[in-house]
Amino acid sequence: MSQQAFLDQLQNQLAPRAIVTDPERIAPWLTDWRGRWHGKASVLLEPSTTAEVAAIVAAAEAHGVALVPQGGNSSMVGGATPPDDGSAAILSLRRMNGIRHIAPDHAIVEAGVILEHLHAAAEDVGARFPLDLGARGSATVGGLAATNAGGVQVLRFGTMRAQVLGMEAVLSGGLVHDSLGGLKKDNRGPSLDHLLIGAEGTLGIITALRLRLVPGRVERTAAWVGVAGPEQALALLRFVEARTDRVEAFELIPAASLARVLRHIPQTRAPLSPPHAWNVLIEAVATGEGEVGGQVLERLLSEASEAGLLADAVIAQSGEQTEQFWRLRHSISEAERTDGPAAQHDISLPVERVPAFLTGDARAIEAAFPGTEANGYGHLGDGNVHFHVRAPGGADRGWADGDEGKAVSRMVHDLVTSAGGSISAEHGIGQMKKDELARLAPPARMQALRAIKRAMDPHGIFNPGKLLD
Amino acid sequence: MSQQAFLDQLQNQLAPRAIVTDPERIAPWLTDWRGRWHGKASVLLEPSTTAEVAAIVAAAEAHGVALVPQGGNSSMVGGATPPDDGSAAILSLRRMNGIRHIAPDHAIVEAGVILEHLHAAAEDVGARFPLDLGARGSATVGGLAATNAGGVQVLRFGTMRAQVLGMEAVLSGGLVHDSLGGLKKDNRGPSLDHLLIGAEGTLGIITALRLRLVPGRVERTAAWVGVAGPEQALALLRFVEARTDRVEAFELIPAASLARVLRHIPQTRAPLSPPHAWNVLIEAVATGEGEVGGQVLERLLSEASEAGLLADAVIAQSGEQTEQFWRLRHSISEAERTDGPAAQHDISLPVERVPAFLTGDARAIEAAFPGTEANGYGHLGDGNVHFHVRAPGGADRGWADGDEGKAVSRMVHDLVTSAGGSISAEHGIGQMKKDELARLAPPARMQALRAIKRAMDPHGIFNPGKLLD
Repeated sequence: MSQQAFLDQLQNQLAPRAIVTDPERIAPWLTDWRGRWHGKASVLLEPSTTAEVAAIVAAAEAHGVALVPQGGNSSMVGGATPPDDGSAAILSLRRMNGIRHIAPDHAIVEAGVILEHLHAAAEDVGARFPLDLGARGSATVGGLAATNAGGVQVLRFGTMRAQVLGMEAVLSGGLVHDSLGGLKKDNRGPSLDHLLIGAEGTLGIITALRLRLVPGRVERTAAWVGVAGPEQALALLRFVEARTDRVEAFELIPAASLARVLRHIPQTRAPLSPPHAWNVLIEAVATGEGEVGGQVLERLLSEASEAGLLADAVIAQSGEQTEQFWRLRHSISEAERTDGPAAQHDISLPVERVPAFLTGDARAIEAAFPGTEANGYGHLGDGNVHFHVRAPGGADRGWADGDEGKAVSRMVHDLVTSAGGSISAEHGIGQMKKDELARLAPPARMQALRAIKRAMDPHGIFNPGKLLD
Repeated sequence: MSQQAFLDQLQNQLAPRAIVTDPERIAPWLTDWRGRWHGKASVLLEPSTTAEVAAIVAAAEAHGVALVPQGGNSSMVGGATPPDDGSAAILSLRRMNGIRHIAPDHAIVEAGVILEHLHAAAEDVGARFPLDLGARGSATVGGLAATNAGGVQVLRFGTMRAQVLGMEAVLSGGLVHDSLGGLKKDNRGPSLDHLLIGAEGTLGIITALRLRLVPGRVERTAAWVGVAGPEQALALLRFVEARTDRVEAFELIPAASLARVLRHIPQTRAPLSPPHAWNVLIEAVATGEGEVGGQVLERLLSEASEAGLLADAVIAQSGEQTEQFWRLRHSISEAERTDGPAAQHDISLPVERVPAFLTGDARAIEAAFPGTEANGYGHLGDGNVHFHVRAPGGADRGWADGDEGKAVSRMVHDLVTSAGGSISAEHGIGQMKKDELARLAPPARMQALRAIKRAMDPHGIFNPGKLLD
């Protein structure tokens, strides 16, 4: 329990610049990027090698000092913020940012590599890394793997789990697990890689990853489609899925969300006039010779129109127009924030249950909390919607964290759970949802998660207070 | 520790036919299908519902009776054979063989469904289940998932792990884990599904699976290609991978293996004349409208020939000829057995290291054990070769299990380990390789596997003596 003895030991083992105790340099990392969680820590460790991370873990166990792993500090659920009793040190992986190897089909990258940098490096070898999300300029690959991140391209390529071909991680005892060699088949018992993916740093520290790359994109085209409701959007999704595997995004957007974007975000305009009750943003991608994403979309949408599956549609005529469509989608969150407080939920459902949730359950929530407005938008193809319940008029900014906001969230989570869904689709549990996880997760899951935590982290040093208590 | 008290409890909870104590009915399940492992058990349990499995697990923990889960009893590593002290009961999942739901893109099947039956059910809905292997007539999906089975189509679709979309499993305490709903995104901590895949029944009992189906095959065409050596085969593989994703198998076969098949298996003939030092069996599949697998192969192989990547090639002119090519590949194991004893190894390597292993390391083994002949064949695209070291002339049938055979296997495993490979690519560890796993696995892996085993199986009832001691 002595941070001083811990530091003394590390001073003999780490490069001097790996140990930061200057409060001013530590301060920016004590709060999450949205300013919702605040913690305390008097030590920030910035190792630059796996050996240094191993030394840190061994010293932390020896002296009972917990470690909070941190990448881009872009968690949505307080997953990288230290506890507020100052008992933990922050373990930043940001200086481990080397690309050890890159080839057209895979890259071996250190945990601190920023997503955007990986995108650029992949492009340099004619490939691409098929996972993308809003925090691309700060989120690191280590954090993306630790949280099994998703994003807007999951429909075709899957979440982070599907991109990880191998891993290097420091486990209890400072022992290094290394599967970076990229064996395509390896049946020596259960996979440690898959155990660490999604564990939010609570079972060990990911230091490097072998990630798959896919062929570079030659053309990318989006279409904006007007539909009557989520049922029609789902029918359109099924229609599209049955005909091509080149569709990479299928985003559902209600009229109210689009209207807010048009009202609050400068230089945006409606793709279709008159407006439709619901909208779908589809992106198709061409990768082979002679293929054209726009043609794929044109054929698909004209067939879908004949089949009565859509009301109206416009296909982007240029890369610029594709970007404009995406800007509408990516601005929803900002526009909604501008418009007043809301309780936001990152939830998932079996895909076929999404329409009933967005129509029936949403109305039930509004009825239970008069004056609220419940709406979902997002990744229909993955059954993952960002479900926002807007506060009644006049509510104060902290409404979502107050009694009513919390009661709303509990009702949302109850309804999601009874529909067979998950209270965390892609953001993880972190600090934000651990009480709800404990309240709603089935006993088999809670028992297993707790047992695995004790087994893999016998000294309780890995990311305390996240996921489980 | 009382089997009688265990039985008494179960007699109140299970249907009478679920409890078998007749030694004659138990006898066939005490030995693995190849007759290499023998065990004892006086109780065989055959539940037909998940609730019955849960009751069995709870009773087993209460009375300290271990359970050996069994599907088709087709393990290659003694993974389903009970211990020889009679301390365990056999838990057969064979009567849980219902297909609960099937649709073109997924099936929900109970653990005891036989692979061949799943293939047929998928075909009935115009789809296919993209995993196939020799034991398809007896292997069950539960066992396939518990061992993360591979097979001949892994190149395009991955191992069993990639097919599992959800799972139902009974964990310690008789608690039921259920992810059969098929959420595409679910970030409530690490995945229990992925932990149970490959755990060989040592962490819990898989009772049902949600498996992905892919579009039905409209045409399947194989080609037989002669190449100078494994290096050329690898260059051909890279060439093919860069040009299409429709190739589903890429099998490497040395001249000696083919010659043995032609010598020992009736009605076989050489696809190419004169013979080549090495052969490759490639299969391409057409799935869309207007696509023809044969055309894909013809274009690919003619380009590869111009690039100097192959010596000769023949494309099957009919489904029957494709079957004939595959029969040559699938008969290697039988032909080799007929030809005398061999130490057989299911190993994997990083794909780029396979050629050096098959040429350099194989010769080193022959030099260390005069009179032996070392050769590998199999799934080059996955880095997975079945590596056989044939006994010197005059060796007796039990040679592989004797001192020299074991010394050979240790050398093979040492060389595989130094090349960054795995001593078990697709067969698992079971009883056969657990000493070698303990000898060669990195400390991080052994520590984690042991800790997870204690955590998930605190009473030590799940498949004792397999994977770990």
